Amino acid sequence: MNKLNIGIVGAGRIGNVHAESITYHIPQAQVVMVTDVIEESAKKLAERFGVPKYSNNYMDIINDPEIDAVLVCSPTPTHADISIAALKAGKHVFCEKPVHTSIEKIKEVAKVAEETGRKLQIGFNRRFDHNHRHVQQLAQNGTLGNIEIIKITSRDPEPPSPEYAASSGGLYIDMMIHDFDMAMFLAGCDVKEVYAMGTSLVDKRIGEAGDVDTAIVTLTFENGALGVIDNSRRAAYGYDQRVEVFGSLGMAADENDGDSTVKVSTVNGVVGDKPQFFFLERYMQSFTEEMKQFIAAIENDTDVPVGIHAGLMSVVLAKAAKKSLDEHRPVKISEICEA
Amino acid sequence: MNKLNIGIVGAGRIGNVHAESITYHIPQAQVVMVTDVIEESAKKLAERFGVPKYSNNYMDIINDPEIDAVLVCSPTPTHADISIAALKAGKHVFCEKPVHTSIEKIKEVAKVAEETGRKLQIGFNRRFDHNHRHVQQLAQNGTLGNIEIIKITSRDPEPPSPEYAASSGGLYIDMMIHDFDMAMFLAGCDVKEVYAMGTSLVDKRIGEAGDVDTAIVTLTFENGALGVIDNSRRAAYGYDQRVEVFGSLGMAADENDGDSTVKVSTVNGVVGDKPQFFFLERYMQSFTEEMKQFIAAIENDTDVPVGIHAGLMSVVLAKAAKKSLDEHRPVKISEICEA
Amino acid sequence: MNKLNIGIVGAGRIGNVHAESITYHIPQAQVVMVTDVIEESAKKLAERFGVPKYSNNYMDIINDPEIDAVLVCSPTPTHADISIAALKAGKHVFCEKPVHTSIEKIKEVAKVAEETGRKLQIGFNRRFDHNHRHVQQLAQNGTLGNIEIIKITSRDPEPPSPEYAASSGGLYIDMMIHDFDMAMFLAGCDVKEVYAMGTSLVDKRIGEAGDVDTAIVTLTFENGALGVIDNSRRAAYGYDQRVEVFGSLGMAADENDGDSTVKVSTVNGVVGDKPQFFFLERYMQSFTEEMKQFIAAIENDTDVPVGIHAGLMSVVLAKAAKKSLDEHRPVKISEICEA
Amino acid sequence: MNKLNIGIVGAGRIGNVHAESITYHIPQAQVVMVTDVIEESAKKLAERFGVPKYSNNYMDIINDPEIDAVLVCSPTPTHADISIAALKAGKHVFCEKPVHTSIEKIKEVAKVAEETGRKLQIGFNRRFDHNHRHVQQLAQNGTLGNIEIIKITSRDPEPPSPEYAASSGGLYIDMMIHDFDMAMFLAGCDVKEVYAMGTSLVDKRIGEAGDVDTAIVTLTFENGALGVIDNSRRAAYGYDQRVEVFGSLGMAADENDGDSTVKVSTVNGVVGDKPQFFFLERYMQSFTEEMKQFIAAIENDTDVPVGIHAGLMSVVLAKAAKKSLDEHRPVKISEICEA
Repeated sequence: MNKLNIGIVGAGRIGNVHAESITYHIPQAQVVMVTDVIEESAKKLAERFGVPKYSNNYMDIINDPEIDAVLVCSPTPTHADISIAALKAGKHVFCEKPVHTSIEKIKEVAKVAEETGRKLQIGFNRRFDHNHRHVQQLAQNGTLGNIEIIKITSRDPEPPSPEYAASSGGLYIDMMIHDFDMAMFLAGCDVKEVYAMGTSLVDKRIGEAGDVDTAIVTLTFENGALGVIDNSRRAAYGYDQRVEVFGSLGMAADENDGDSTVKVSTVNGVVGDKPQFFFLERYMQSFTEEMKQFIAAIENDTDVPVGIHAGLMSVVLAKAAKKSLDEHRPVKISEICEA
Repeated sequence: MNKLNIGIVGAGRIGNVHAESITYHIPQAQVVMVTDVIEESAKKLAERFGVPKYSNNYMDIINDPEIDAVLVCSPTPTHADISIAALKAGKHVFCEKPVHTSIEKIKEVAKVAEETGRKLQIGFNRRFDHNHRHVQQLAQNGTLGNIEIIKITSRDPEPPSPEYAASSGGLYIDMMIHDFDMAMFLAGCDVKEVYAMGTSLVDKRIGEAGDVDTAIVTLTFENGALGVIDNSRRAAYGYDQRVEVFGSLGMAADENDGDSTVKVSTVNGVVGDKPQFFFLERYMQSFTEEMKQFIAAIENDTDVPVGIHAGLMSVVLAKAAKKSLDEHRPVKISEICEA
Repeated sequence: MNKLNIGIVGAGRIGNVHAESITYHIPQAQVVMVTDVIEESAKKLAERFGVPKYSNNYMDIINDPEIDAVLVCSPTPTHADISIAALKAGKHVFCEKPVHTSIEKIKEVAKVAEETGRKLQIGFNRRFDHNHRHVQQLAQNGTLGNIEIIKITSRDPEPPSPEYAASSGGLYIDMMIHDFDMAMFLAGCDVKEVYAMGTSLVDKRIGEAGDVDTAIVTLTFENGALGVIDNSRRAAYGYDQRVEVFGSLGMAADENDGDSTVKVSTVNGVVGDKPQFFFLERYMQSFTEEMKQFIAAIENDTDVPVGIHAGLMSVVLAKAAKKSLDEHRPVKISEICEA
Repeated sequence: MNKLNIGIVGAGRIGNVHAESITYHIPQAQVVMVTDVIEESAKKLAERFGVPKYSNNYMDIINDPEIDAVLVCSPTPTHADISIAALKAGKHVFCEKPVHTSIEKIKEVAKVAEETGRKLQIGFNRRFDHNHRHVQQLAQNGTLGNIEIIKITSRDPEPPSPEYAASSGGLYIDMMIHDFDMAMFLAGCDVKEVYAMGTSLVDKRIGEAGDVDTAIVTLTFENGALGVIDNSRRAAYGYDQRVEVFGSLGMAADENDGDSTVKVSTVNGVVGDKPQFFFLERYMQSFTEEMKQFIAAIENDTDVPVGIHAGLMSVVLAKAAKKSLDEHRPVKISEICEA
């Protein structure tokens, strides 16, 4: 069996996560080149995982005829162009989210993917989480009946710097984008309207920089169900990641993962573990699983589990939320993007 | 010690609940008269709890100089007038919620209470619930830091008949009114704006009757915190009553009470109890506690724990929610009622 | 309807508990006399619950022809003789546990009960607890299949004084007697052999007084199942009361009751309530329920739910455990008492 | 950096587990040879993990001067001799449990290890489990105060065949050996006496073959604490693995790991996941962790985390338990083996 040859563009945190998954958990694939504008980063990843080639130019991957698939793990503004270049070079692409902040640009990526017939998967890893996926299965297999209410709580352990918040595009696209995708994943359909509340309660400087750090967004789904997402940039007890689906036959809800199931009973109460620290701890299993399914989709020539529609709609929802906040009114998705 | 003499107007379900609390759990008070327009109901309550007098006319209570306090447990449209009559007769009043559906009328009750200097407590029993009250204490004593997000889930086990739904004033005032009050109780302040979503997913006939059976309402509090309430008229697993307060130092959340803590592990999974069936089971302790505190406030001449402001603001929020739904936009509280 | 007239012998803590249950929760019965060797105690109980008569002599109850049933709540050494006197006077008897520390004496009580045909119920209130009873129902209704292992944990919040421990008859008869009864209740059969371990780890003086404060006792049941009980006189986190039944089809286990279901998540972890403080808080519902069923057994002339066999076997097990500890070997029940 | 070269004797299930840990999770080491008496098994493992050499003769590993450490994963009767041969050849040894069923033989292995100064670690993987280890840390770091009671529940999802049970040496050495080691790990000291109960309730044929399938064993620890272990060969709900340590300051207890934290609430109750299926699922993390620490002990020339004393005492306890069952009396450890 020939192994699938993978090139990784971007040797940051998420590039390393994917390199680890492929090297240790996906025997059918191997990382053969990594690039990063900071060549030292590429070199370090290459050494860590025994990757034979590295460079500071992603075109070295695009131009390498041995490479079957490209993982686009570079900064957000470059996702779309690198994806397009890779697709046009005949490579399958795994692109981190968000694909781009411009809807036009995302549509362009979609068009190229369609024309080239190459696989294009978007990095919404939380769809592969053991907890959330189980809730989704119960929602989609009929156990819960008709879906009526979806609730998502997503809170980070620590706020970013005000500088980062300012440059990130804002909470809705930087943070809540995962929850928008999760909402549609759980509902099994798109959203038709959003109403956004947002404020700065965690760090005044985030508000001064024009962003929010605490937000509640409500959703109306195409299937008639209602939804609500709440986000905070800082939870004192750690990374809070919970979803709940309520339907005509019942409810499925997950709880946070701790490092252990131990309960300590003392004079102070019965104490259990806090949630696992942050996304690398909490979602590591999901990163590996999304990569396994990407590789499997290439091998078996089947549909990828998360396509460009998810990449597009999550950004559309983020834009609608921002517009809703700015204009202080509910916003229809059709105002942002015709279906 | 002379016992406080209580008259109960209305011998329905809630009148019986209060009679039971006083008879069995509040030695300082005794029920001396009960009235109901259906005299047979008054008679039955009187026999059940050994109440010496009953009649079909609430004026018999108002005119009885031996009676110190009146519990207004009659149908909603009569709450305000009976309360006013009782207050003017020099009696303390415990009035079931909602006080009235007219804001002017509620203000009139407030005015009479102020003029007469009698105690006036509103029947928001959930404030006395062992779970919710514990969350509120943690929110108000600083354990959770600054309050940032409040979430309330409230779902009934079974929908009412479409006829009832139509005549009840609608979900926001009939059902969510409890959650509006709970929201302000947890936040420790009033609400300044609401945005309401509502739809009919449980029973089409409820929608045809002009009401909703599934709803999400978001709140902006005076202190800057955000909130969200979700309601459903039917939860397959029973009466779902949960609150969550998130603040700068952490989160407090309660879970439903079941009839036992037993977990049964079989080939089918690990199964725990469903929530207790409905409000009489779930909130019985809170009904007794609110009555104890009402009696104590009279005895000690201290402030009642739930005053007319709560009675007013809960109705204001319900009206704001209905307006928000009708006009499909966020509605400021000041549009409904000047502070 | 004539109310059943109840006399209470002993106006201590448990006498008050039963008086409260009857006065507030059992309309078919009323307490008409209370006696206590300390007349002031009897008077206080009488005043608290509106009992018309009190005295310092239990014979006043025995000789009162109006009294239908007697609750024997006096100190342990007097249980048997008072019960016998009451039975012979034609009264039904509810006797607190242990009936006596002499097996012969317990058998005498049994004989008198049989001869007089009066009801005789023993005060093993934990059988009526909402949690343990639910486990027992699952064990006895076949949900768990054949019963194979039974585990009981029972730990007090605070140790008694060494003086009390010395005079109480020791941990096995003073504390574990409840667990012996619970074990047989859960198993649905008697025990045929015990092996006892015991030591003094909580308070040296308890050991010096000849008693143990920490103990594990294993049981072999008549039906072939195995069991284990662990006791401690002091749990830092409070009153720990848990049972577990494991069978061929699964397991049922209960958890402690707290005052609320609230979980507080902070930087220190996720903290839940400690168990309710001690037996009066934890088991109040069970005290009322046992009394309701005693009264119902009299009214309906049906079997009492906890008969003298339970009173006898629990003491037999305690004696077997003590013998096992002393002789450091497993002890057959038949060594203590022929069936 | 030169990688540590590992040889694996025995290409069965556990040999594959260790090969996977080293290949994917321990960059400082590499598997360079695998042997199995069934050469095809060795070949398959070699191919699966890219191991360069394989054979059907473990002496090929012993005689290979390039190999630094040997993992003894062959059938139990061969553990001791292969370990001795490897140690004498100057290699570090990781030996699966039990080391041998003969205490003399285990002592011989210990002697050789001491003489050669090579590392010798025993495969008690559960010490590395995230849950149990957390309990042990709380027990050993003083959080729980003086340890007083230790409870261990360990139940398999499915019974072995009666043939296996007969040939395995019996439940105490085949299954409970893990729990004996866990008990001493949690207590931080050895055991001085055991009392064993055992019976055949799961499969009569296991009893007919002279073994038990349901067992409770109580322990007296050197430090005065009491302990109890319960085992069943079949739990309908899956692999049940729980420990509890109770001390003067409180209790730490763990719960089973499920595949998710999802709770499904329907008309049937609130259902959570069953425990993970069996030891490969439940304890995979611990297998990797024990191997990491073995490699680290070699690299850093520090003590191994689980030495031969644990290998010896676990077998001693199993023998004492069997003797206790046979002779129906408590058995002192000193009867089996002088310290």
